[in-house]
Amino acid sequence: MEKLLVIKIGGQVIDDPEKLISFLNSFSSLKEKKILVHGGGKLATQLAERLGVEQHVVDGRRITDAETLKIVTMVYAGYINKNIVARLQANHCNAMGLCGADGDAILAHKRNHPVLNYGFVGDVDAINAPLLKSLLNQNISIVFAPITHDQQGQLLNTNADTIAQEVAKGMSGDYEVTLVYSFEKNGVLLDTNDEESVISEINPTYYQDLKSKQKIFAGMIPKLDNAFTAINSGVKKVIIGKAENLGLMVDGNSGTTIVGQK
Amino acid sequence: MEKLLVIKIGGQVIDDPEKLISFLNSFSSLKEKKILVHGGGKLATQLAERLGVEQHVVDGRRITDAETLKIVTMVYAGYINKNIVARLQANHCNAMGLCGADGDAILAHKRNHPVLNYGFVGDVDAINAPLLKSLLNQNISIVFAPITHDQQGQLLNTNADTIAQEVAKGMSGDYEVTLVYSFEKNGVLLDTNDEESVISEINPTYYQDLKSKQKIFAGMIPKLDNAFTAINSGVKKVIIGKAENLGLMVDGNSGTTIVGQK
Repeated sequence: MEKLLVIKIGGQVIDDPEKLISFLNSFSSLKEKKILVHGGGKLATQLAERLGVEQHVVDGRRITDAETLKIVTMVYAGYINKNIVARLQANHCNAMGLCGADGDAILAHKRNHPVLNYGFVGDVDAINAPLLKSLLNQNISIVFAPITHDQQGQLLNTNADTIAQEVAKGMSGDYEVTLVYSFEKNGVLLDTNDEESVISEINPTYYQDLKSKQKIFAGMIPKLDNAFTAINSGVKKVIIGKAENLGLMVDGNSGTTIVGQK
Repeated sequence: MEKLLVIKIGGQVIDDPEKLISFLNSFSSLKEKKILVHGGGKLATQLAERLGVEQHVVDGRRITDAETLKIVTMVYAGYINKNIVARLQANHCNAMGLCGADGDAILAHKRNHPVLNYGFVGDVDAINAPLLKSLLNQNISIVFAPITHDQQGQLLNTNADTIAQEVAKGMSGDYEVTLVYSFEKNGVLLDTNDEESVISEINPTYYQDLKSKQKIFAGMIPKLDNAFTAINSGVKKVIIGKAENLGLMVDGNSGTTIVGQK
């Protein structure tokens, strides 16, 4: 099967113009077919502040009321998405920016939580793999903003990590998919205070071993659990590491690679 | 050749949620392959006001400084474009919202005016017809926001009427193109005070005749000159009329149809 990279970049890269340009240069150099999923960074929060729209965050999740949805749609699907695409075009990397409503690319439903009303937040139901495949076959790299829709006319704010994971899973029937999560550290560390203590590869047995010996920082466990969920759903491997090292990560020379049992 | 509709909707429809929904219902009902080009309406101006970004308009053209470009990119390519697409999806009209940077759909260059610095305003150089054709062949209706790019990483604010015309011209090699301009009147009127005096069809001879008898309202002349330019560049016909009558217009039962000499 042909290889496909699904790469998530987070807010810390988006908020820093120099880092973003450098990251997009590395992304453009990758020879494989590729999909980029971007988060939002601080821009939406800053715009909300300037507009006097109060923000509520519960358990690290933004509560998305109607005014906030308008702001994130403008900032994520408009400003950030289109500037990333324009920059990739300048690098001769043909890219197309989409949200989930475009071409019905990502279908979601409004989160129905027993206790908390998240507002206009979407949980992903389906990825339109044939559409994405058709674009990739035209040598177009897809750039996803973290906004989905419910096929009823409602846009929904959706976690970018989740979108990356769902896209990776949804495309794994057609491609050998590598899912890359960039974050602020060099990878999964054996010692959280030592950036050089990156674990290069984790398989399920080793993960159980690390967990039983309590050698995994608690904050990493949800990320790793998600990575193994992706692996168990057909994704070939998941790489976690620093955005600055994208090229090295994809070649297996930086970050932590999560693989299935051999 | 297969038929293609290129339809431009203006601000007065976008600013009125009820009119917009009704228009999008009509658009969804059209059986032909179709491309929608939307303008911006008052939303960008309102957002600029709320953010304290001063707006300069010269000869009806917004001067686009860096802050204004940011605002129009957010409002046009983000909020308006994605909400239109979500609404069309709810109508089972598969749509994809693009700006000119997406898939290199519309290439432009920054306007170089001898006297006036328009700022980040783009004049269109080329339409990516093969890309648009490939999307239309997947039964996807394209929704264009009036933002283009220069392939150097710069987004550019671009007049939506111009985009509609350039797209219509660019697609006329592959399709029998009808270009529809919706505006606030029922069509080209013989008597500007009588909404019932719509001229149903104008060809070049009749246009010369009307102009020589000074029966055309001066404000209509640039619109009609543009329409004939499109006709002379391969567009089959241009229809000018009221957004509310979209279905009737496309069937030739409302508005003014501009055609070439038979």
